[in-house]
Amino acid sequence: VLACETFQHTGSFKFRAAQHVAAHVPHNLLITASSGNFGQALAYACSLLRKSCIVVMPVTSARVKIDAVREHGGVVELVDTQRKSRAERVHELSLRYPEAYIASPYDDPLVIEGNSSLGREISQLRDRPDVVVAPVGGGGLIAGIIKGLADSKAEIEVVGAEPLLGNDAARSLRARELLQNTTEPATIADGARTLSLGKHNWSIIREAVREIVEVSEESIRESVRLLFSLGNVKVEPTGALSVAAVMTRPDVFRGRSVCCVISGGNVDPAIYSEIITGRSLPQGL
Amino acid sequence: VLACETFQHTGSFKFRAAQHVAAHVPHNLLITASSGNFGQALAYACSLLRKSCIVVMPVTSARVKIDAVREHGGVVELVDTQRKSRAERVHELSLRYPEAYIASPYDDPLVIEGNSSLGREISQLRDRPDVVVAPVGGGGLIAGIIKGLADSKAEIEVVGAEPLLGNDAARSLRARELLQNTTEPATIADGARTLSLGKHNWSIIREAVREIVEVSEESIRESVRLLFSLGNVKVEPTGALSVAAVMTRPDVFRGRSVCCVISGGNVDPAIYSEIITGRSLPQGL
Repeated sequence: VLACETFQHTGSFKFRAAQHVAAHVPHNLLITASSGNFGQALAYACSLLRKSCIVVMPVTSARVKIDAVREHGGVVELVDTQRKSRAERVHELSLRYPEAYIASPYDDPLVIEGNSSLGREISQLRDRPDVVVAPVGGGGLIAGIIKGLADSKAEIEVVGAEPLLGNDAARSLRARELLQNTTEPATIADGARTLSLGKHNWSIIREAVREIVEVSEESIRESVRLLFSLGNVKVEPTGALSVAAVMTRPDVFRGRSVCCVISGGNVDPAIYSEIITGRSLPQGL
Repeated sequence: VLACETFQHTGSFKFRAAQHVAAHVPHNLLITASSGNFGQALAYACSLLRKSCIVVMPVTSARVKIDAVREHGGVVELVDTQRKSRAERVHELSLRYPEAYIASPYDDPLVIEGNSSLGREISQLRDRPDVVVAPVGGGGLIAGIIKGLADSKAEIEVVGAEPLLGNDAARSLRARELLQNTTEPATIADGARTLSLGKHNWSIIREAVREIVEVSEESIRESVRLLFSLGNVKVEPTGALSVAAVMTRPDVFRGRSVCCVISGGNVDPAIYSEIITGRSLPQGL
């Protein structure tokens, strides 16, 4: 079973958390740093709730991503990350707007609670799977799924899927302590380019997850291609991590019914084309 | 509302008809001529019913399409269409296998009956649309939808969407008689490269359809791009005809709730990449 969050509002699971955060804090202004799906999701959630939203994005962000935040009514603050980190810019904004809530894309109990709705939905499937596989970046999705399954008293194993290039979560699980990547991982799965798990997420993951499968960049690309050609599903590279995990470690899944969480579908057309054709576009094309 | 047949068995609406035909004829061997979705769908339907299936395809067919028929257990008969037409080859096979049923991809009451299930499903939507837009090639899909909606006593208008390059159905409707294209239309919507409507379909369409919107090749491409970028839906060009119709004739749809039938999702990665990036790949890349 593919649990496709590609058709969620704003095209990824991030809307679950963004909506929950925006609806449950009393603040009328929310600020976040996100170049990706959380920024879009928060902007849209705030527009539905008639709240305001500032999204800090690097000046190098893809035009379509900046436009998407603006279309949902979000204010985009561009930051030159060569000169100032996104965290610094968020801090400055928090001083200028002391009434604002600083929303973390993944390290907040409200994020886990928001994402838990996906776990509850999976537990209600007519054919309940034996195991759920979910991408791991900051860990908010998998922690939410674990909580949702627990809320539903569904005894379903949860397995993580993480890029080998940014395997802080798998290493943390082996070491039994929260470890970090030293630099932002250069994985094609941009939703998993996080330095470490959120603390709240780690406390859930360390108790409930036995296995985080580390997948190669090529297996991520191959999974995007498979979902394109065999499933007619358009996924972003991060969304293909779960299928990549199944292909990488068939021994973990053999003979079991598996639900792969496809976390999102937002991907630049040029990158997607390069992946599905298996060829790089020449420079400047 | 998008009615997505991209997730139907074998990736297009054709399975509805193929399954119905294969299940309702007493023959154990079925023969069809199809380089596209119907061949795959019939092969799969026959495999489920433990029947045999021969699919006549041009030698120039894409490798992936030939492989897809074979993977479903179909026997592929390649024909060099420079030397012999597909119809001739089918006729030869019908003489060699007199016990076989020759299955038309679109001109057969069983095809209409099979496709009518989609009309019944649309009539059961919680928010019933005012109008359904469906691609028109041989006309089996739109005729089936009309029949299904009539079966359900749902008063929903049905509008057709056809490539301007192969506008035999629109011209037929204006002339009130069944007209043909003189040559196979060179539209990118390969599911609509038919010479004319099936006779059974025409008798339904002429009574029930007031409007067939003719769409340009560029609007088909633009619709594939829109569905990719705004909907995360992977569609084949033929599947985007209905959205192209809405964009081409907003006056027909303004103020009404519209259900666009996305008829299928099977498209070659190279062609899809060319469409979504808006650029042709250089020769040989």
